[in-house]
Amino acid sequence: MSETATAKTVTAAILVIGDEILSGRTKDQNIGFIADYLTGVGIDLKEVRIVPDIEEEIVNAVNALRRRYTYLFTTGGIGPTHDDITADSVAKAMGVSIGVDERAVELLLTRLKREDLNEARLRMCRIPAGADLVTNPISAAPGFKIGNVIVMAGVPRIMQAMLANVVETLETGAKMLSETLEAGLPEGAYAKGLEEVDKKYGDVSIGSYPHFNTSGGGFKNQIVLRSKDPASLAAATADVVKMLADLKAQLGVS
Amino acid sequence: MSETATAKTVTAAILVIGDEILSGRTKDQNIGFIADYLTGVGIDLKEVRIVPDIEEEIVNAVNALRRRYTYLFTTGGIGPTHDDITADSVAKAMGVSIGVDERAVELLLTRLKREDLNEARLRMCRIPAGADLVTNPISAAPGFKIGNVIVMAGVPRIMQAMLANVVETLETGAKMLSETLEAGLPEGAYAKGLEEVDKKYGDVSIGSYPHFNTSGGGFKNQIVLRSKDPASLAAATADVVKMLADLKAQLGVS
Repeated sequence: MSETATAKTVTAAILVIGDEILSGRTKDQNIGFIADYLTGVGIDLKEVRIVPDIEEEIVNAVNALRRRYTYLFTTGGIGPTHDDITADSVAKAMGVSIGVDERAVELLLTRLKREDLNEARLRMCRIPAGADLVTNPISAAPGFKIGNVIVMAGVPRIMQAMLANVVETLETGAKMLSETLEAGLPEGAYAKGLEEVDKKYGDVSIGSYPHFNTSGGGFKNQIVLRSKDPASLAAATADVVKMLADLKAQLGVS
Repeated sequence: MSETATAKTVTAAILVIGDEILSGRTKDQNIGFIADYLTGVGIDLKEVRIVPDIEEEIVNAVNALRRRYTYLFTTGGIGPTHDDITADSVAKAMGVSIGVDERAVELLLTRLKREDLNEARLRMCRIPAGADLVTNPISAAPGFKIGNVIVMAGVPRIMQAMLANVVETLETGAKMLSETLEAGLPEGAYAKGLEEVDKKYGDVSIGSYPHFNTSGGGFKNQIVLRSKDPASLAAATADVVKMLADLKAQLGVS
């Protein structure tokens, strides 16, 4: 990972490609994983889209997202079957040619006999001109990086290996730091006080998240503070802690 | 649910609103649930987007999606805290006014004393002009439906109750039917045969999905056929079954 200045912001989007996610047949496991991973290395995930296996939809989404963010990560649609159209769609979006890439053929030949390298398997070797391959230790078929677009497999295990490999080559920015507080009060009781802290610190974003405790106790609320500046984060967190304590004293809640 | 002609297509998009999903802090559980639910009632989910708690992002996504699909479902951002800006953003996108809705106030007063109905809690009663409320039995605060946009909570348990209530009022189309086959062969072996069946049936979409079997056996592949026409689905499924059997005989695979 390259060294970067503390204040630098590096952004990303994810494009999930696949009818199976939209039909509900497959439950996506990649968005949450990539979100955690990028947060951990200092890349800010700003948008996610899920589109079907339709070339025009993929091309339009790739172009909208790659132009807007530092990086675009795609998942899905790079296998050997007719519905795997991601590589061709990305080439079309970028305006580059695509064909069978000898580097990818060599990778497949480490696992397959040459006589088994049929037309379908060669489809997995179709790589846009000018792309770098993104390898993985689980399957022979590579993903690729072209410009700021990183194309990865949809199978979580393979995607995760590709992500770990490719992130090493990317720019990263200042890491987002966070603090989580258990509110111990209803959101409606502390919302005003929380907004005041939020307004005081321009470089801290504060969210309040209710969740239903299925093991009893009904709703619990967590307050999450996020900032790239440790001093601001600490100060805002102290303000929220004090606000909650004052409010509990006032309401007679322990 | 209204009766509809067999061939009718009703489409939808989902817009997930929330920094906590993009940061990885919260793993979305709503997309997969809504996808399954809509597929089950005959509404075709065509696109999903996840955006942060930023008004301009929400407004732009709401307008892009509501204009393109029969329905747009949003999740998240309708609580009492400062980061809950969905209702105001949807009102802005639709070009309508927004204010405290007396119907929503009445709902909250079934759970709260009037003296506890502070400014923050009244925020949950801000409903765009002309919207219908979408109630739920778990929390008092309602979602709403305005035009073709349905605004729901982010907490899965509440969202699910709102979805069940609102779907009763929506148009639905012909249900997508599906058949799933265990391939028992590598994708690269059957890709050509599968593409031929796919081309033969214009009204059947066929996908091939590898998944890694963590309990051993490596990758397994499933073939999923989807159509709204039962006869086409049955014919295409029979063709794929025969194609796989012929291939296994040819390759000497049992």
